[in-house]
Amino acid sequence: MSVKEDIAQISRAAKAASNYLASASSTAKSEALLNMAVSLMENQDVLTAENSKDLDAAREKGISRAMLDRLTLTGSRITTMADGLREVSALPDPVGTIANISRRPNGLQVGKMRIPLGVIGIIYEARPNVTADAAGLCIMSGNAVILRGGSESIHSNRAIAKLLQEGLEKAGLPKEAVQLVPTTDREAVLEMLQREDEIDLIIPRGGEGLIRFVSENSRIPVIKHYKGVCHVFIDKEADIEKGISIVMNSKVQRPGVCNALETLLVDRGIAGDFLPKVAKSLANAKVELRGCAESRALLPGIKEATEEDWHAEYLDLTLAVKIVDNMDDAIAHIRQYGSLHTESIVTDNYSQAMRFIREVNSSVVMVNASTRFSDGNQLGLGAEIGISTTKLHSFGPMGVVDLTTEKFIVLGEGQIRE
Amino acid sequence: MSVKEDIAQISRAAKAASNYLASASSTAKSEALLNMAVSLMENQDVLTAENSKDLDAAREKGISRAMLDRLTLTGSRITTMADGLREVSALPDPVGTIANISRRPNGLQVGKMRIPLGVIGIIYEARPNVTADAAGLCIMSGNAVILRGGSESIHSNRAIAKLLQEGLEKAGLPKEAVQLVPTTDREAVLEMLQREDEIDLIIPRGGEGLIRFVSENSRIPVIKHYKGVCHVFIDKEADIEKGISIVMNSKVQRPGVCNALETLLVDRGIAGDFLPKVAKSLANAKVELRGCAESRALLPGIKEATEEDWHAEYLDLTLAVKIVDNMDDAIAHIRQYGSLHTESIVTDNYSQAMRFIREVNSSVVMVNASTRFSDGNQLGLGAEIGISTTKLHSFGPMGVVDLTTEKFIVLGEGQIRE
Repeated sequence: MSVKEDIAQISRAAKAASNYLASASSTAKSEALLNMAVSLMENQDVLTAENSKDLDAAREKGISRAMLDRLTLTGSRITTMADGLREVSALPDPVGTIANISRRPNGLQVGKMRIPLGVIGIIYEARPNVTADAAGLCIMSGNAVILRGGSESIHSNRAIAKLLQEGLEKAGLPKEAVQLVPTTDREAVLEMLQREDEIDLIIPRGGEGLIRFVSENSRIPVIKHYKGVCHVFIDKEADIEKGISIVMNSKVQRPGVCNALETLLVDRGIAGDFLPKVAKSLANAKVELRGCAESRALLPGIKEATEEDWHAEYLDLTLAVKIVDNMDDAIAHIRQYGSLHTESIVTDNYSQAMRFIREVNSSVVMVNASTRFSDGNQLGLGAEIGISTTKLHSFGPMGVVDLTTEKFIVLGEGQIRE
Repeated sequence: MSVKEDIAQISRAAKAASNYLASASSTAKSEALLNMAVSLMENQDVLTAENSKDLDAAREKGISRAMLDRLTLTGSRITTMADGLREVSALPDPVGTIANISRRPNGLQVGKMRIPLGVIGIIYEARPNVTADAAGLCIMSGNAVILRGGSESIHSNRAIAKLLQEGLEKAGLPKEAVQLVPTTDREAVLEMLQREDEIDLIIPRGGEGLIRFVSENSRIPVIKHYKGVCHVFIDKEADIEKGISIVMNSKVQRPGVCNALETLLVDRGIAGDFLPKVAKSLANAKVELRGCAESRALLPGIKEATEEDWHAEYLDLTLAVKIVDNMDDAIAHIRQYGSLHTESIVTDNYSQAMRFIREVNSSVVMVNASTRFSDGNQLGLGAEIGISTTKLHSFGPMGVVDLTTEKFIVLGEGQIRE
């Protein structure tokens, strides 16, 4: 069978399964996820054996240590996957909730009911845990899912997907609701991106290159998340201790992730007090600073920031620093260089806090909190299928509710239009 | 200036204006719309004079009478545009509304705040009234708008857009928040569809050809609305009088629009009673029927329906009729041939009504009501920017709220992540 026919068949089977899933009870969906968790735990040996095939191939190819680490399945990582499925199985089912039924003058009752999107395509790179995490969220929200993982993790993904399908069948749900694309060449991705009659949404998870490739070639709506150039703005009325603690946590706690701080903006009115103190803590944590001319005058010895630094997502222990005139200047900088991910203001001034919240239109806007809280779990979504930094459909971290949409429902008693 | 540079400049100006609009007060936005309404009413002579240039050119080209009608601006149509702007100016402003702030275990308060999408591109055909209607909805929801109307209505559109810009300026808002693309060739559309860094959403309004062209060439999310193949299902426990009245209203009241009835599905258990009666009323209204074999046995003389008829959006006094085994069969037919627009069940049975509402996942699902209510105004949105028959972002008729999105807001007191 050609790749084209293969993807066509998978897509049609997914669409048929999605019609079934859309009406499945919360109980059946939860049960499927719990079955999956049990299967993963009971088959750790199989999973690690299959995973070691991937690891051997990866070592032969000479991939980086970081990638090798992401690829590795251990007992504890399998437990984390299983726990994730259990947590998602306990989330409230968004499907079928009805909001705001109101009565029209002619007596019609009009409201909106949540329904699944239908079929979700997930295109991802090395991490095999995405296979279970993404499938759990899609199933719980009543969607079928087509998983297309990277070639490096194909043995691990196949083993995991097989167990997920068993979990569905044991709960009386169609196994085609979770399908792994068996071929790993790019042609399969391109074919998926053309199946607009069956696939409702594409979520790419991986580097900027993957996301651009997917969004430039897709006929299907794509959730985009290019990068996270997050800012903390220290207002002139900031509490200095809170400021230091928030900057340190935002930058240092886990520098390699998208919600880590990349550029620190400091109001000129507090820079003389704040910058030397925070620079000392950052130096102790081995963070390299790159500053504007004015901040370099306060912090002798730090490197000069170039235009590139204001755009940079370092994902490392490096931080750009800029002194700004005031909040207007800070907001203008965020608009020009930000990635619409997460920005936080540190201030004790009520009006400044409210203005920042109103006027900064990134997907997550914070007052006096670490940017590291910008994550589905931390924000109370239970679990996260991805982050959207474009405004259509969802903006920011996405949970099960974001994998649904609302249809209108109209309850009448024979009304006709005049 | 080349078309490319032209569109680039318009897009960048729109983006700058959108940042201003996003923080504009409801009062300023309402005032702008009221100013626009006054200007339209005060300049009826100018508008009809410019419109007559379009009409002369159109007559020379020999366009259809229907299109000529859509193109014509009369005093009463200008009044309707002005009234539309006044109605939209009175709608509640969705921007800045905060929903569901909840407290996380660590004390962080997390909620969502509505913000405008940014810049909306409207691509439309002959109707000059879209210029004012779309601009009003975009401005009220805090967005800038780029309007690209068809060449047939260019003089009318330019005159209207000029008045709209005056209305903005009088209210202290930037006139670049409403811009009309001055060139009318397709290159301008293609250029717009590439400006993903400035334009957040494209709404095409026109025939299926236009919508396909736009969605196949766009890097920007597109609201799609291909067609409306709407169904009424007469359940075996339907009230026959209500059924006749709903079928007649859905089909005959305005057959040329997307929410008109196109296929009637009748449960076999009631077909013998129902079909001959409804056929009589339909015949009186000069509706031509095309039926399945079984319905033709009950209604001698009607044409045979082909596969094409089940797919057809007639937009005319023609109706396809099919007898189905039961609700499962009706739902299967709707899934196979429907366009996800609007479906209505006529029944007095509670369980059947609830099942139809749950299991039919079209954008508007009704019980005992005419499909003609599937319209933003009738459903209580105040006014409609368009209809989406795909599930991403919005599904069904879209009003001002659908021109916004939600960002996360996080109110902390110095929290950092453990």
